[in-house]
Amino acid sequence: MLSVTCKAPVNIAIIKYWGKRHEELILPINDSISMTLGTNELCAKTTITASEKFQHNRMWLNDEELLFEEDSRLMRCLKGVQRLAHINGSQEASLCWKVHIASRNNFPTAAGLASSAAGYACLVYSLARLYGIPLTEELTTIARQGSGSACRSLFGGFVQWHRGVLDDGSDSVAEPVASAQHWPNMHVLILVVNDERKKTSSTTGMQRSVTTSQLIQHRVDKLVPERIANLKKAIKARDFQSFAEITMKDSNQFHAIALDTYPPCVYMNDVSHAIVNFVHTYNKTTGTVHAAYTFDAGPNACIYVLKENVAKLLAAIQKVFPTDSIDTVEYLRGLAVSPESNIEKNSDGATDNSIHTTAEHRKVNGMLNVQPKNLLKYIIHTKVGDGPCQLSDDNSLLKNGLPLSH
Amino acid sequence: MLSVTCKAPVNIAIIKYWGKRHEELILPINDSISMTLGTNELCAKTTITASEKFQHNRMWLNDEELLFEEDSRLMRCLKGVQRLAHINGSQEASLCWKVHIASRNNFPTAAGLASSAAGYACLVYSLARLYGIPLTEELTTIARQGSGSACRSLFGGFVQWHRGVLDDGSDSVAEPVASAQHWPNMHVLILVVNDERKKTSSTTGMQRSVTTSQLIQHRVDKLVPERIANLKKAIKARDFQSFAEITMKDSNQFHAIALDTYPPCVYMNDVSHAIVNFVHTYNKTTGTVHAAYTFDAGPNACIYVLKENVAKLLAAIQKVFPTDSIDTVEYLRGLAVSPESNIEKNSDGATDNSIHTTAEHRKVNGMLNVQPKNLLKYIIHTKVGDGPCQLSDDNSLLKNGLPLSH
Repeated sequence: MLSVTCKAPVNIAIIKYWGKRHEELILPINDSISMTLGTNELCAKTTITASEKFQHNRMWLNDEELLFEEDSRLMRCLKGVQRLAHINGSQEASLCWKVHIASRNNFPTAAGLASSAAGYACLVYSLARLYGIPLTEELTTIARQGSGSACRSLFGGFVQWHRGVLDDGSDSVAEPVASAQHWPNMHVLILVVNDERKKTSSTTGMQRSVTTSQLIQHRVDKLVPERIANLKKAIKARDFQSFAEITMKDSNQFHAIALDTYPPCVYMNDVSHAIVNFVHTYNKTTGTVHAAYTFDAGPNACIYVLKENVAKLLAAIQKVFPTDSIDTVEYLRGLAVSPESNIEKNSDGATDNSIHTTAEHRKVNGMLNVQPKNLLKYIIHTKVGDGPCQLSDDNSLLKNGLPLSH
Repeated sequence: MLSVTCKAPVNIAIIKYWGKRHEELILPINDSISMTLGTNELCAKTTITASEKFQHNRMWLNDEELLFEEDSRLMRCLKGVQRLAHINGSQEASLCWKVHIASRNNFPTAAGLASSAAGYACLVYSLARLYGIPLTEELTTIARQGSGSACRSLFGGFVQWHRGVLDDGSDSVAEPVASAQHWPNMHVLILVVNDERKKTSSTTGMQRSVTTSQLIQHRVDKLVPERIANLKKAIKARDFQSFAEITMKDSNQFHAIALDTYPPCVYMNDVSHAIVNFVHTYNKTTGTVHAAYTFDAGPNACIYVLKENVAKLLAAIQKVFPTDSIDTVEYLRGLAVSPESNIEKNSDGATDNSIHTTAEHRKVNGMLNVQPKNLLKYIIHTKVGDGPCQLSDDNSLLKNGLPLSH
């Protein structure tokens, strides 16, 4: 009996993946770049146990058992890693054993974050650990076939997913652009927005965009390659201003393509757009670009902000998007906001952590329109993080091959 | 003393005008096509009096006096028509007289409809009547310099505004595609949406799109020309299905371009998108395309629908977007809904004007999600209409050169 437990991060696209050139192999029509988020705040955790005594491959996701062997994406990942292990000369025996898998996210589904990316990355990474094979570009092609953006969650920091040109997808791999340590003060605030609408799934949405949008091909052919190059330059130079502008423009363009789809796909709502307005106004009044929004196929905002600017930005967000929530732990999740940057001298020389203390803050407040209460569900504060890693056995989600909760 | 009173219609773009190639001459970067709406429901009315006794050119818009001689767009229209009259050999005397102008819209500004198009069309048409010159393509180039889309309001039915290629704009003219009589059963429901947000003006928005959108040039060069040709074909063949699809796609693409602008311009809101969803679902459940939405630079929907389908569609709209308003005259404005199409036999052979009577209606109701109450302010029912016309003197808005209300 073999068992491993691993965790893998969520990633947020900066240059968006939207549209496949091959549905089953999950080959994208354009390159994308993402940032990996810290696993302390957001991660998938997976335990895989292999045993010669197991009769079937089984899997529990957040304690619900799935029909593993009928799930082609899961099976493709399992078979893909086993094939790779076989080539790498792993022990024949364990490769034939059936596996039991338990997987969980440490964040609520309600966050609307792409949990499948972290989940499939964790599955593929855990299988690789189980069979003792290294993290290679080829491994990313297997994660990609579980969920496209999962390939980007196999690395920390900033990651590029190459569209590739080969029909078999072997060159459609994820590759690190820069590590988390390269830009350690890159933080993120995730603004989780209340939204009850039914939305088009991203799989359906991107299919429909590829078929019906008359703008998408121009984006893919002419615009994305330059953006990818410019974003990599900005990341390498730690140039937040350029990074922010490309991030916001690409988020907007992705949603423009979704809107140019027929029937249109609309993922942002009025609150999302109020956040966009807020960020532009905030940047304008502070006189420099301190915040950059990006939105995936949902209404929640991810706001990139350097560590030293988090406290000020968060104070402004809380002013503009007031909440009735008095449960600070529930409402402000994740990393603590470092008090040193939150406290400023006021004119009396005393310290005060209110946003009202400085002239700059007064200016910001004057420009910002306070929104109705409770537009946000909660806020998660996290930062750039590392890739997946293996955990000690006391983190196992399985006991004797069954979920702990059973 | 000379005096004329005229009225001019509102027009709704089907292929959208967005972006200028010359700011002052108001030369667009692409052709557009619009439909002219009936003046009974929506129009501008203008009286112009010229007198050798007047000291200054003066103008009252909805009873507010403007600084006429400091308004370059108004002055350009006045001078333009006077120049044309001079060339056409009008009496020298009256051409030198100062004018007093009163103008009004018969619809509230809150409707968010492009009142400037009707207003400038009415101004230029009235000046032409005053000086006795005919309605020519050249006259449309003068209206265009007041407000771009005003040139389209000089004709009834379906109208194309050619972008033109000349630097002086003399070939950027409006031209009729088909008269109102060509497709007389083309009706429109305008759904006026509650919205309090501040929006970017369309002048500013289109400037910003031209400067920053990376998709707009592709739209202009590659997509609009084909759409223009296909739409003209659909109009000429009275092919509602094709007309509807092009209309909806171009509305979506215009808003996509606005969203691809930096910072983005967002004109539709959650209610607008709920209307979009409603229309697609309605068309899907009825099994054919009965309704086509289009949105200008604001949240209100214009829904094109053939006369014979108005009653059913309106019943569905009222079901999905319920109102507390009991003042039917206030809430349902414009043309009456013809009772013959509203009344259907139910299974007992009795007549019933409810939407619940037929299987098709039950199907529609099942698919449609009822929205919260009072998302719509009111609904205007109108149809394709004729161009401007002169009215009898008892319609005059001026008495002895001053507004009646003064």
